[in-house]
Amino acid sequence: MKLKTITMEWTGDSLVLIDQRRLPFEEVYVTCADYRCVALAIKEMVVRGAPAIGAASAFGYVLGVKELLKKSYSYDQVLSQIRSIREVLERTRPTAVNLFWALERMEKKLMEHGKYEGLLKVVEEEALKIAKEDIEINKAIGQNGAQLLQDGFTVLTHCNAGALATVDYGTALGVLRAAKEQGKRIKVFADETRPYLQGARLTAWELMRDGFDVTLISDNMSGWVMKQGKIDAVVVGADRIASNGDVANKIGTYMVAVLAKRHGVPFYVAAPMSTLDLSIESGNNIPIEERSHEEVTNCGGRRIAPNNVNVYNPAFDVTDHELVSAIITEKGIVYPPYKENLKKLFEE
Amino acid sequence: MKLKTITMEWTGDSLVLIDQRRLPFEEVYVTCADYRCVALAIKEMVVRGAPAIGAASAFGYVLGVKELLKKSYSYDQVLSQIRSIREVLERTRPTAVNLFWALERMEKKLMEHGKYEGLLKVVEEEALKIAKEDIEINKAIGQNGAQLLQDGFTVLTHCNAGALATVDYGTALGVLRAAKEQGKRIKVFADETRPYLQGARLTAWELMRDGFDVTLISDNMSGWVMKQGKIDAVVVGADRIASNGDVANKIGTYMVAVLAKRHGVPFYVAAPMSTLDLSIESGNNIPIEERSHEEVTNCGGRRIAPNNVNVYNPAFDVTDHELVSAIITEKGIVYPPYKENLKKLFEE
Repeated sequence: MKLKTITMEWTGDSLVLIDQRRLPFEEVYVTCADYRCVALAIKEMVVRGAPAIGAASAFGYVLGVKELLKKSYSYDQVLSQIRSIREVLERTRPTAVNLFWALERMEKKLMEHGKYEGLLKVVEEEALKIAKEDIEINKAIGQNGAQLLQDGFTVLTHCNAGALATVDYGTALGVLRAAKEQGKRIKVFADETRPYLQGARLTAWELMRDGFDVTLISDNMSGWVMKQGKIDAVVVGADRIASNGDVANKIGTYMVAVLAKRHGVPFYVAAPMSTLDLSIESGNNIPIEERSHEEVTNCGGRRIAPNNVNVYNPAFDVTDHELVSAIITEKGIVYPPYKENLKKLFEE
Repeated sequence: MKLKTITMEWTGDSLVLIDQRRLPFEEVYVTCADYRCVALAIKEMVVRGAPAIGAASAFGYVLGVKELLKKSYSYDQVLSQIRSIREVLERTRPTAVNLFWALERMEKKLMEHGKYEGLLKVVEEEALKIAKEDIEINKAIGQNGAQLLQDGFTVLTHCNAGALATVDYGTALGVLRAAKEQGKRIKVFADETRPYLQGARLTAWELMRDGFDVTLISDNMSGWVMKQGKIDAVVVGADRIASNGDVANKIGTYMVAVLAKRHGVPFYVAAPMSTLDLSIESGNNIPIEERSHEEVTNCGGRRIAPNNVNVYNPAFDVTDHELVSAIITEKGIVYPPYKENLKKLFEE
């Protein structure tokens, strides 16, 4: 039982991840043979992007179960010990809900199975199912979202919600891919996305690889580019969407949404159903991860700011639902009012 | 006749500039003994900031006159030859009006003088006057602007409109300095200001040197910081202000202004009268400099984006006058309607 995409490969014994910290200059792989390595890879952003870390954590869970089974634990012992492994995986990144969703799904499968025999096979199959479903879901998101893009559109995207942020194909970039596959000519402006440069390093790289016309800009420029009428639509991904439609996504997304609103540019969020967290009333309840100061004080591997300067480094922000023109999911496009329409989506 | 500040020193024979490209890590100086060196220093951003390049170009003009006089040219020959030297200095940076203003003022002085004798002394005195006036003007801007800041305020600033962008003291940062000198406790958030990082490298450096509490953020974060209520006012500089109050300033200023408006945070522009270009009707007529692709594809001296990616790198943007709460000049604070009130300022 194997899986191989640009982002990750499941060999049956280990999870191989492309080291996204070293793109676009080096294609280096990290091989994780235990769950600790997977947790570290998520925390250190070897692998990043909400759907990708969801799938990676599922394989981490499989490696955790494997380790417990090797210790000749009983089914009940596995059940009790796996809790702390799950916690290690969960503690890596607090904002993306897909991580919690995938681990919840894995645990549910483990409990449903109810016996020692065949346990590893069952959890491995579930992780592979999550990964394969993710690709199908992204293709469905792409099909749904492509309707919103017309031939000749120039689309602005922020951060990387691409093949590298998912198991394959991408959410926001999946929408662009699907439109291109339909024969539409789509140009892209990519924000570089400081401090971690996912736009400059990852989005530019994967879209150029697929033959897109990509123009890189600093994050400071998106407003000016919109003011000049260069942008027809914004498409971004999401790390968590609250029941009222508030969207947590990479820091700077909120700013782009405010600017899009001012310029009458539609602002679309492309995300799988697993990103929707209906248990959360609004964006105010979404935990926002703060990352190390070095991400801000350094760039290109070198220090760019004075020593001892104070730093604030929130990795995500929340975009108010009123700024979101539509949410594109695998089940269809959702328009406001989100509170009612997101709920309906789950009931369908 | 000498002048010595953190930004520049006039020795009588040459203009010594702190190399701002190498701050905050190295304090290295560039000595310009001819006008070509000054032009290159402005173009390559050894010295930057609208008032600073105005003063530097005036000293470049002095060095140009000196060179012509050495060739034993007559007064009329100097008058005709200086035109091409002025052009070399003007062609360095198209957006900041202070450059054109300072050179215009130098040429006027040269023509008024009307004879060969004492010519060098007259232009040198004029350049020194421009430099010394700049410091006085900044202190007056500071006094005027400080009224707008209350004790305990946290102020966001973009790019560097500080001592390093002027001959000394600064425009936007001069307002912060004056407020601090009045005993007000002022905290500062500094946008790093990609692609050239004037915020991270220069603003953080010069404010920390003066004992300010400075927090560095990536440009992506200003909207989120405002949304959390952390910012009481925005103060920025300007490179050119049109007669209707539209403000050309460092790329990203527009974005900050839109976000300030959304959050009810006052957005102040601090600039000397020489930045006002009443000959220009609106921001649409201000030429916007585009700089090299390498500024965007590189950071911290290293490449951060794939080879051959397209790049758009406008160095400035224009903020609509309706987003500007007030313009702080040495002659007072100007409120809307700007078309009338800016005109009045010149008539006073």
